[in-house]
Amino acid sequence: MEHWLESVYSDGTEEFVSPAPRLGGSVTVRLRVYADAPVDRVILRSLPNGAEQLREMTRGPVCRGLVYYEAALRINEPRVPYQFYLVSGSRVYFYTQTGVSELLPDDTHDFVLLADYAQPAWVKEAVFYQIFPERFCNGDPANDVRDGEYSLRGFRARHMDWDAEPLPYREGGCLDFYGGDLEGIRQKIPYLKELGVTALYLNPIFTAPSVHKYDCVDYFHVDPHLGGDEALARLSETLHAAGMRLILDISINHTGSAHRWFNRDCLWFDQGEGAYHNPQSPERGYYFFGPENSYRGWWGLPELPVLNYSSQALRDVIYRGRDAVLRKWLRPPYSIDGWRFDVADVFARCDELQLAHTLWPEIRAAIRAENPQAYILAEDWGDCAQYLQGGEWDAPMNYWGCARPLRQFAGQRDLFMERSPALAALPGGLSAPALKARVLQHLGKLPFALWENQFNLLDSHDVSRLHNDPALRPEVLEGVAMLQFLLIGAPSLYYGDEAGVGGSLGSNEGCRWPMPWDSDFQQGPRFRFYRRLIALKRQREALRRGGMQFLLAEGGVAALARFTRDEVLVALVSTEASARSVRLPLAAVGAAAPAGGTDLFGRALDWRPLPEGKGVLVSVPAHSARLFDCRMLA
Amino acid sequence: MEHWLESVYSDGTEEFVSPAPRLGGSVTVRLRVYADAPVDRVILRSLPNGAEQLREMTRGPVCRGLVYYEAALRINEPRVPYQFYLVSGSRVYFYTQTGVSELLPDDTHDFVLLADYAQPAWVKEAVFYQIFPERFCNGDPANDVRDGEYSLRGFRARHMDWDAEPLPYREGGCLDFYGGDLEGIRQKIPYLKELGVTALYLNPIFTAPSVHKYDCVDYFHVDPHLGGDEALARLSETLHAAGMRLILDISINHTGSAHRWFNRDCLWFDQGEGAYHNPQSPERGYYFFGPENSYRGWWGLPELPVLNYSSQALRDVIYRGRDAVLRKWLRPPYSIDGWRFDVADVFARCDELQLAHTLWPEIRAAIRAENPQAYILAEDWGDCAQYLQGGEWDAPMNYWGCARPLRQFAGQRDLFMERSPALAALPGGLSAPALKARVLQHLGKLPFALWENQFNLLDSHDVSRLHNDPALRPEVLEGVAMLQFLLIGAPSLYYGDEAGVGGSLGSNEGCRWPMPWDSDFQQGPRFRFYRRLIALKRQREALRRGGMQFLLAEGGVAALARFTRDEVLVALVSTEASARSVRLPLAAVGAAAPAGGTDLFGRALDWRPLPEGKGVLVSVPAHSARLFDCRMLA
Repeated sequence: MEHWLESVYSDGTEEFVSPAPRLGGSVTVRLRVYADAPVDRVILRSLPNGAEQLREMTRGPVCRGLVYYEAALRINEPRVPYQFYLVSGSRVYFYTQTGVSELLPDDTHDFVLLADYAQPAWVKEAVFYQIFPERFCNGDPANDVRDGEYSLRGFRARHMDWDAEPLPYREGGCLDFYGGDLEGIRQKIPYLKELGVTALYLNPIFTAPSVHKYDCVDYFHVDPHLGGDEALARLSETLHAAGMRLILDISINHTGSAHRWFNRDCLWFDQGEGAYHNPQSPERGYYFFGPENSYRGWWGLPELPVLNYSSQALRDVIYRGRDAVLRKWLRPPYSIDGWRFDVADVFARCDELQLAHTLWPEIRAAIRAENPQAYILAEDWGDCAQYLQGGEWDAPMNYWGCARPLRQFAGQRDLFMERSPALAALPGGLSAPALKARVLQHLGKLPFALWENQFNLLDSHDVSRLHNDPALRPEVLEGVAMLQFLLIGAPSLYYGDEAGVGGSLGSNEGCRWPMPWDSDFQQGPRFRFYRRLIALKRQREALRRGGMQFLLAEGGVAALARFTRDEVLVALVSTEASARSVRLPLAAVGAAAPAGGTDLFGRALDWRPLPEGKGVLVSVPAHSARLFDCRMLA
Repeated sequence: MEHWLESVYSDGTEEFVSPAPRLGGSVTVRLRVYADAPVDRVILRSLPNGAEQLREMTRGPVCRGLVYYEAALRINEPRVPYQFYLVSGSRVYFYTQTGVSELLPDDTHDFVLLADYAQPAWVKEAVFYQIFPERFCNGDPANDVRDGEYSLRGFRARHMDWDAEPLPYREGGCLDFYGGDLEGIRQKIPYLKELGVTALYLNPIFTAPSVHKYDCVDYFHVDPHLGGDEALARLSETLHAAGMRLILDISINHTGSAHRWFNRDCLWFDQGEGAYHNPQSPERGYYFFGPENSYRGWWGLPELPVLNYSSQALRDVIYRGRDAVLRKWLRPPYSIDGWRFDVADVFARCDELQLAHTLWPEIRAAIRAENPQAYILAEDWGDCAQYLQGGEWDAPMNYWGCARPLRQFAGQRDLFMERSPALAALPGGLSAPALKARVLQHLGKLPFALWENQFNLLDSHDVSRLHNDPALRPEVLEGVAMLQFLLIGAPSLYYGDEAGVGGSLGSNEGCRWPMPWDSDFQQGPRFRFYRRLIALKRQREALRRGGMQFLLAEGGVAALARFTRDEVLVALVSTEASARSVRLPLAAVGAAAPAGGTDLFGRALDWRPLPEGKGVLVSVPAHSARLFDCRMLA
């Protein structure tokens, strides 16, 4: 590849598309490239109403060594896709969201503008903190679960015993109570402010027997052991007063078997009340019943009966009615800022009954009617681009384009493949070119506005904490956190990662250990590292609203830049076992050189200018991570 | 890439998926690879109801040196996607419809099964012959256009003058009448049988002033100059009696300005009748009227007012009502076998009014209600995979994955890029790897059943005839025709290509010259070449129902194989200026060697076995084309 191609760049930020696309209006689209690149002309390829248009762009101003080509683009329809063609001598290069290619591309990775898209604009500047409420902080011991309180189907409450092997769910597992509650979270708001996070994502809090509460028995009330509805109202009020946001987790795919509607277990409700024992009950149609009172359970689990959305009444109670579940909690006094949908990948998909793409737009409309800035975050671990075109989800839990490739780059096996016995023995690791390809494979199929909605995580309640994997190098782990925080979208820190909380690798319980409030982790390097990283994400314009470009992906070395016209930050991470030098084409993002001899964490940065210009040669130590500022070109 | 990877193969033919997928049923999926390949296990990756499943396939029987891995796959929902993972030592390879990769792929190129898909099964074995009716054969001079007959808006009928520059449409062009009619086509059925084609695609025949008849004035009647409705009934009857099929071309995107509904020109109808002069007319809502009686015309042309499908009455008359246009002609005595939709890429897409994906499924349902085997062929020159998922079109005019890359491989510029002044000066040509990538880029996004529906063309009424381009090499042109005929789907021959009909390159008129019936082209090599190629497509099981694999794509040399378990045909084409030898891994498709020392056209084929096995070394002359049979492995 010719070097000048490294500088070809456009995206959906204000720098490259302005003003915001409005139906019937027009925007200016820009592309930049080295001012001295051998480019004869740049063509904007658009597709108004399905008919291809090729129009030459105007060579515009030069800024920091980069020339900006410009063209007007009519926003004639709700979704406006485009590509760029660059003519250089007798060659033509095609540029889409996944980069430059000499192959005439199809429409898969088009840049896409959405007209009048209602973006939850706060997300791209947010730093999330995910809390598993039962394990965070016990603020009110009076509401703790009593021993033996849960006797349904043999479940028993147990006190925490971290040395014991956790029981699987169907044998009464997920009943090891620690006592965490919403009052505990509220009490820790000063701590969270000190850490710097700006938004909380809480795992489920509605009434349910287990610690994880995905087995809900009542969507309309917060579990009393977490403090009940009042505790949520209080938490929400205090958070909002502190300038923080709150999103809640819910599974509308299934309920618990003890839910009032189903009530197989009859723990809370009378036997006459639910669909399981009473085929005449109004909620019988909410579930999938078969012969002999059999029913469909999520992942085959009888404890989690799947909801059947062919029921219009169910749609009403979940999202459509005036006081539907999803609406209630968006309103005062709870006023949550969005929903995280559990197992959204399988929601409303039951063999011949495939309702997902019918229901999600309706759910979106219901949520946005209550709060136009509400965030719609969905659990999906794979390619879910079909849901991410503007009319359904705002974002997935970004395992596919963040956690999975970044954890693998750090040295692990892919999260999904390790679940297969046939694949679990394969070695871990991922090259930097594959990391780049995986990240862009995900983002490349999304309108740019959706890039900014991404929920970028490394750890969660469903995957082992990276820092507990003894095979991984600590500085590489900091490196993947830097990359995570530099990705466009909102990074999410899983509670306790900043404290190095303990945990085991083989089970879900292993990633839900309680916070070590009695230790002095707040004085430790890990806490300081995250506090600094969070502060950078919040303070730097480039990380809040800037563009993003891989400057390097070679062997085990990746360099990712975020930038505005006046600011460039670069994360440089090596997973290689030996030190070496790499060429960093900083001029591609308008920068001359690193700002100095150390990075933003005080680590030595050894570099010298490239004799041929366009950047620097940087010495990369083995297993290393650097995050540095740049000096801009004139 | 390791050599054994060249043998990894699966597709949607009966050999690799059986039985036909039925909702609620199950199929066996197979993948094959060299029996001696270092494969430890093969995983079938599926996604039932959105949840990933990885299941190990069973190593099954070995046949012709290839081992078949097998697994059952439940057809639990209407669309069933899958991929394959191959484990070899410490590596894992991913295999999708675009080939083998070491990068964990997204879902873009998944294999996809459609449950209960109503495929027009005759298409994959058909050989189409496209006729521009006015220019084919004058069977009844009594119905010829009279001089001066068309006086609307300055149009005048002209007699053919091939030396004159054709006039553009708005200056009265497209009125150079030759006299071709349906009776002429009927009279030439013995000729078409001799040539061997099995299906006709006729450009528009409904009443309209121009020769091309895309400016229709009455969808309910065949133009009297073509012989009227009776001539169509007679033609259809004779064709069907001869075992041939017939599809008609229609533009339901726009009418002519002289259409009864619009009637701006008042040539056929009274001034009171149409929407243009009478704002109270029932058809006013069929069009897009703006201030001062302005209206939307296709490509801005006032002669072609665009239809407005927000009108329910229009939907009724076009496809929904009992006697709607699209239904009428599918019924006796006309009994056509399908529709070709003009400018389908822009149909029902008018800025804020984007109805395409609402209307196409309804149109499909209406057509299939009349004839379950009717072919739904749509004009689109680009990536139109969104329409090709089973519920809308059966196939596009395959410019995107056939005509455009094959014509470029032959040496031309890309058809679309040459339309842009900024790109027209670029050199033509396409490498064999790019040809392969372009073909698979198109097919890779489609369920396999749609591969078999493809309408694979090189020439048409809209692009210059390849054989009239003096810059191209005749044998390379035969080579791209071989590749065209080997692609999965139906090849389409444009009338007169077999006769080397004349034409100019710069205008639409240039590709619509009349057949030279008075010459002896039927004794010439071009006619014999096509007759032989057509016969092979019809007779050989591999070309009718087989799989397809690029065996080689290197520099300017491409080798494409079609095969069943017992038969392999290979097209080997070089656009290179020098002779050289290439490695053909025939064992990848179960073959030992070419069947002899000449190909199926009697051309010398110089080859010797590879010392390391797995195929042969073939000498490829410069600018050459071969199509040969193989001897199978035991």
